[in-house]
Amino acid sequence: MKVQSQLKTHSYTPEGFIGDYCKLVTQTVIPYQYSVLKDEAPDTEKSHVYQNFLNAADVLAGGGGGDGFYGMVFQDSDAAKWIEAAAFSLANTPDPALEKTVDDFIDIIARAQDTDGYLDTCFTIKDKDRRYTNLLEAHELYCSGHFMEAACAYFEATGKRKLLDVMLKNAEHLYDRFITNGAPGYPGHPEIELALLKLYRTTKNDKCLQLARHFIDTRGTDPAFYSKEAEKRDWSVWNSDPWDNAYRQADKPARRLTDATGHAVRAVYLYTAMADLASSDNDSELYDACKRLWQSITKRRMYVTGGIGSTVHGEAFSVDFDLPSDTAYAETCASCGLMFFASRMLENEVNGEYADVMERAFYNTVLAGMQLDGKRFFYVNPLEVNIGISGISPTHRHDLPVRPKWYACACCPPNVARTIESFGKYAYGESSDTAYCHLFAAGKVSFENGISLECKTGYPYELDVKYHVSGSGRLAVRLPGWSHSTTVRVNGDPTHVISEKGYMYFDIDGSSEIELCFDKDIKRIYSNPVIPALTGKVCLMRGPLVYCFEGKDNGGSVADISLTDGDAVTALDDSLPGVTVIDVQAVRASYDGDSLYSDKAPEYTPITARAVPYYTWGNRGENQMRVWTDHLA
Amino acid sequence: MKVQSQLKTHSYTPEGFIGDYCKLVTQTVIPYQYSVLKDEAPDTEKSHVYQNFLNAADVLAGGGGGDGFYGMVFQDSDAAKWIEAAAFSLANTPDPALEKTVDDFIDIIARAQDTDGYLDTCFTIKDKDRRYTNLLEAHELYCSGHFMEAACAYFEATGKRKLLDVMLKNAEHLYDRFITNGAPGYPGHPEIELALLKLYRTTKNDKCLQLARHFIDTRGTDPAFYSKEAEKRDWSVWNSDPWDNAYRQADKPARRLTDATGHAVRAVYLYTAMADLASSDNDSELYDACKRLWQSITKRRMYVTGGIGSTVHGEAFSVDFDLPSDTAYAETCASCGLMFFASRMLENEVNGEYADVMERAFYNTVLAGMQLDGKRFFYVNPLEVNIGISGISPTHRHDLPVRPKWYACACCPPNVARTIESFGKYAYGESSDTAYCHLFAAGKVSFENGISLECKTGYPYELDVKYHVSGSGRLAVRLPGWSHSTTVRVNGDPTHVISEKGYMYFDIDGSSEIELCFDKDIKRIYSNPVIPALTGKVCLMRGPLVYCFEGKDNGGSVADISLTDGDAVTALDDSLPGVTVIDVQAVRASYDGDSLYSDKAPEYTPITARAVPYYTWGNRGENQMRVWTDHLA
Repeated sequence: MKVQSQLKTHSYTPEGFIGDYCKLVTQTVIPYQYSVLKDEAPDTEKSHVYQNFLNAADVLAGGGGGDGFYGMVFQDSDAAKWIEAAAFSLANTPDPALEKTVDDFIDIIARAQDTDGYLDTCFTIKDKDRRYTNLLEAHELYCSGHFMEAACAYFEATGKRKLLDVMLKNAEHLYDRFITNGAPGYPGHPEIELALLKLYRTTKNDKCLQLARHFIDTRGTDPAFYSKEAEKRDWSVWNSDPWDNAYRQADKPARRLTDATGHAVRAVYLYTAMADLASSDNDSELYDACKRLWQSITKRRMYVTGGIGSTVHGEAFSVDFDLPSDTAYAETCASCGLMFFASRMLENEVNGEYADVMERAFYNTVLAGMQLDGKRFFYVNPLEVNIGISGISPTHRHDLPVRPKWYACACCPPNVARTIESFGKYAYGESSDTAYCHLFAAGKVSFENGISLECKTGYPYELDVKYHVSGSGRLAVRLPGWSHSTTVRVNGDPTHVISEKGYMYFDIDGSSEIELCFDKDIKRIYSNPVIPALTGKVCLMRGPLVYCFEGKDNGGSVADISLTDGDAVTALDDSLPGVTVIDVQAVRASYDGDSLYSDKAPEYTPITARAVPYYTWGNRGENQMRVWTDHLA
Repeated sequence: MKVQSQLKTHSYTPEGFIGDYCKLVTQTVIPYQYSVLKDEAPDTEKSHVYQNFLNAADVLAGGGGGDGFYGMVFQDSDAAKWIEAAAFSLANTPDPALEKTVDDFIDIIARAQDTDGYLDTCFTIKDKDRRYTNLLEAHELYCSGHFMEAACAYFEATGKRKLLDVMLKNAEHLYDRFITNGAPGYPGHPEIELALLKLYRTTKNDKCLQLARHFIDTRGTDPAFYSKEAEKRDWSVWNSDPWDNAYRQADKPARRLTDATGHAVRAVYLYTAMADLASSDNDSELYDACKRLWQSITKRRMYVTGGIGSTVHGEAFSVDFDLPSDTAYAETCASCGLMFFASRMLENEVNGEYADVMERAFYNTVLAGMQLDGKRFFYVNPLEVNIGISGISPTHRHDLPVRPKWYACACCPPNVARTIESFGKYAYGESSDTAYCHLFAAGKVSFENGISLECKTGYPYELDVKYHVSGSGRLAVRLPGWSHSTTVRVNGDPTHVISEKGYMYFDIDGSSEIELCFDKDIKRIYSNPVIPALTGKVCLMRGPLVYCFEGKDNGGSVADISLTDGDAVTALDDSLPGVTVIDVQAVRASYDGDSLYSDKAPEYTPITARAVPYYTWGNRGENQMRVWTDHLA
């Protein structure tokens, strides 16, 4: 069974929780990020992205390029992700002023494209001779990929082709280089593959599909490629080891990959493209590789929050079951990428496992990547912070207790923005004969198969979902893996629905009301003891949300708290409006004296401990935080 | 109250547990290490130390220096520590053949000393012009320090002065340079300070005392010193940051130090010298600094095993309470150094706290540094290993599950050897009017104050100690902090003894028998919840020994074991002859399925879990190991 959520362009108007988040991104994040790109945000890391494009355009017009290029070699991609987020925002909420801003930016970008289709301000401004001499590190294809994604989104939102044409020209230029002229190689950071497949779907330009297939199929076939490339040049960006192919998933051909390895974002971007191509080409060998990689991630290398890439060393996947809470890396972008991968897996096979993970990554790590007011961002998402250690100790320096405003390497903030604004692409999908509700998102949806629906829900807090469906055809609604007791009513009548691989199927003819009441229990989650870091611990979940304990709600310290088997109830908290918190029976250990170790057993005092959704942590100043808590069984 | 264990030269003939360990070092470790130094040990890291000295002697005799210098810049120190261990062995067990071997080695070393007193094969062979141009990294003073220690030990053991004279000449040469001629600077790696103080005590050469005081008092007074030094030269060993003064305890004057910081071995070597000088000079300001540093270590930065320096980054102290089990560094040498520091603190003030820590470090981390057969060594001493993660994951690469034979940087193996063979120096001490038993070690001891004793004990397993004491004077015996119920018998009569700061005092006149029966309970040890990594955990101790669980004794896996409040009893185990193990009531969690996380509570099956002394771990192949275990309260 095939579903193509990206192929069919169902429309979704977000409301409720997702609608509020989209509004936040539209009203706060997008303007803020634009001010960052223009270096107009106070007390923020310099970006220079906007100026880089002006300077590149100046060079191409025969000028001196102003104050030159500034930033990471992939600085351009911040502009692309911002435009993509703005495009999704415009699709949700038309805004002529924002559209004008984007149009103007696109005009500059178009002027920064060389006559041959080349687009990358870093090399256009300062190093024209170095173009494509460092696929290992230079991120030219990565940046092209992000602009291709932005172009598709902006075209979908506005019907305007200017950026789309720029990127089609860029794609043709790359096709000429890598296919017509047979230049060897593939990008050090996968991204363009999934973007070319989007561009193909949007434009039907077959060269895009061919080039994506070419990059995927040649990747890893010559383990000496990057080394040979490095020998030919006298410069590098970071002096990367050209033989560390596993880091960039180029140690073996893509369809021979077995374990999720290396830089986590690179990995899931590649796997996304592989899964996308597998469904486009109906390529079961490639899908089998994707399934192995999916299992590697979700059965052996994923945090309960949907965070992946547990080690700071290379922002990478570690070995199986190495999932420490306090030194976690779990990059925000990697969880965005895990959502992309999951959504493409759903196109190969409708299976609730994929949507369960997509939901886990979104409601926990992706949302945690942004402060509740949209003004600060996490790059790294630890599952435990300890004040005085986190952000300070050499092994915990990357695990910050509060979100910074921006990053010199600013990949994550715009990634969160674009993922939220395009939530409808992940929540809803469509195959030739069926409309799908993968995630539960309030709002109106129109599918191409003629079905339209309005979804009303207070999800992820209220775990009831009501669909007013009209039209004729088949509708599939996911039954979340976490819901052990779901009641279904169709037009008010309790209905027994048999689910297949985590989906319930409804034949719609006319107008129907489908109501789902999911399991509202607060759940204690236990980890498999194959994860050494989590033995003896428990965490709380309700619906798709992972909860955590913060010192703020618990008298300063949470490390001395152990949950008991007592009651857990939902509650509200003034300091987190609109958020359902959990009050749970626990004990606090009191320890006598200032020695590190004692043979005197601690005394336990009963307390009520308060847990808050993980995505809301770090919004109320620095304090201790724990997802996984001790428990007394 | 002052005690000078190093000043008075009581004699100790080891028997029992310590005697067996000394025999192992004498019969196995010293010959093995000598074969390593001579590059005659098969399948072992190349050392070249012996040949380096031959080559340096050749250069000084006008030759070409053979095959040159090989090894770390501090390679010479392996020879020094080996000679020191051999000297202590000869003091315990005269052996003409070994003495001849050492004499011959000393002859070569003497020939490798330049006419001006300079001694360092690295620079003598290849870089004469670079002498003393890189105090930051080049370890010349560190190597001199180790040879001074060796010289004192060999003189004490044999009465032979040759190496002592070589090192006095070297000390004079250094005195001329740093004091007479006022050359600026102090060693990047402290060691010579404590060694000069030993040399002073052995020879009464006042220049040694002055030079030690000079290095301690000038250290850290010019934070720009290493930077200015670096600017003057065009080479480096490791390109170390000359401004990272905290790493080498040179960020402020020694007596202003507050927290134990930087490279742990450097730190405790410096603190040892500071404490030694404080007692020599009766310098209360310096002793106060030592007390602050002692508190910083023992109240905030020490493992239950007496391991220190928790982070691999710089082999260093981390911040307070950052004491992870599985990524621990806890270098063997650092715990040797902690013993040195503790022994010098005891010379300032007789306080059982110092001896308790000295004992903790010895019986757990120092002993763990060596395989039970004396043939393999740990540099790093984790408190938890997990097969598939430890030694493999990027954050756990240093935590090996079994001991290697040798190391390219081979500081630890000879440090363990010399510490074991000189155990009597730490176990027994003497002040002007009192003989001290700091640690419990079977064997015969003669103090200068006229008291002699024979100690009979099966310590650390049998926790009864019997002293046959003769002579006249005061004898002080430590009452260990871990013993909550101690019975004392003097000449068979139960005696109530009031202890003062952890010591019991006896006035001896004639012949007495003192019997101590210490607390034999198996203790559950709890950690202060200020250590986030250990909340919810418990470990077992009996007497001075920390225990751990290994998969070998527990059906392969220990991560799924939680201790209960049930009985714990001692037992024997055929695979660890002579070792008392502990059988403790526990439960094993069974987890359903292969998912990482589940809302199904694990089921607990009662089991008897077996714990073995931590120092014996890793002797029976690769398997999971945990000191800190979960428990169900």
